[in-house]
Amino acid sequence: MTAPPTLAPRALAERREVARHRLSTHQRLWLATGSDGHGAHLIPVSFVLAGEYVAMATFERSRTMANLRARPRARLAIGDTDDVVAIDGDVSIVEVADVDATVADRYAQVSHDPRRIPGFLYLYLRPDRIQVWNGFHEYGGRTVMLDGSWLDEPVD
Amino acid sequence: MTAPPTLAPRALAERREVARHRLSTHQRLWLATGSDGHGAHLIPVSFVLAGEYVAMATFERSRTMANLRARPRARLAIGDTDDVVAIDGDVSIVEVADVDATVADRYAQVSHDPRRIPGFLYLYLRPDRIQVWNGFHEYGGRTVMLDGSWLDEPVD
Repeated sequence: MTAPPTLAPRALAERREVARHRLSTHQRLWLATGSDGHGAHLIPVSFVLAGEYVAMATFERSRTMANLRARPRARLAIGDTDDVVAIDGDVSIVEVADVDATVADRYAQVSHDPRRIPGFLYLYLRPDRIQVWNGFHEYGGRTVMLDGSWLDEPVD
Repeated sequence: MTAPPTLAPRALAERREVARHRLSTHQRLWLATGSDGHGAHLIPVSFVLAGEYVAMATFERSRTMANLRARPRARLAIGDTDDVVAIDGDVSIVEVADVDATVADRYAQVSHDPRRIPGFLYLYLRPDRIQVWNGFHEYGGRTVMLDGSWLDEPVD
């Protein structure tokens, strides 16, 4: 929000690349969940890409997991508040024994290893909307993926 | 999560000071909301301290505002995923005309000025729980405020 209003907004194609790059290179994100029973919850969590999914893990007995059991949908943010990549998607809860070994091995390189900590579960989020903006001047044109498809033309 | 497991966790008093310092010196935070009708939403937003409240502002017609009208409670995070200050509290929606001029003036210094943009409302969150941790090794003892009171002894 501190960017001067004269700063030119980035084009859609550049923002798409920012989203892809951040998903490929970062290791931690913010995970926001909410359900009927509870309000919103927000935690930092490690992640790796697993094909088209964002793979995460957290405690089975946690507010995040209770929220996701009640409403299996989440919103993620990667980066800081002045340079946002926000991702919405449905979430599947996956037992430790059912996670692909290659994914679990990569996950163990960016986090404690859920295979070695009792009471953990993996979370697989499939992005269906991704938004990229770095200030008020980029609020228009921030959507780079909608309904699971990368956009070639702005929709907002 | 990348901190070596031998790193000593900070004492409660030091974590309290981190929370106070961050609230006093930062200008942007993550705002997570959720309601019965919608899932979780998560946005970056500018803030200033207003007495015991965290004052923010956003669009009247937004997912965040719809969530808060349905369930006036939010969770905030200040800082990045490896160095967390998380804040839970009830939220009051405040009309632009009803905001203290001193607060509005300070807010205008860290953000676009809601007094000059049609369709904005202020949000006042009163913290009742604050948690501070910078990795898995600090997960115990992370609560520094509970039920609105700063703690002298760890509760978790």
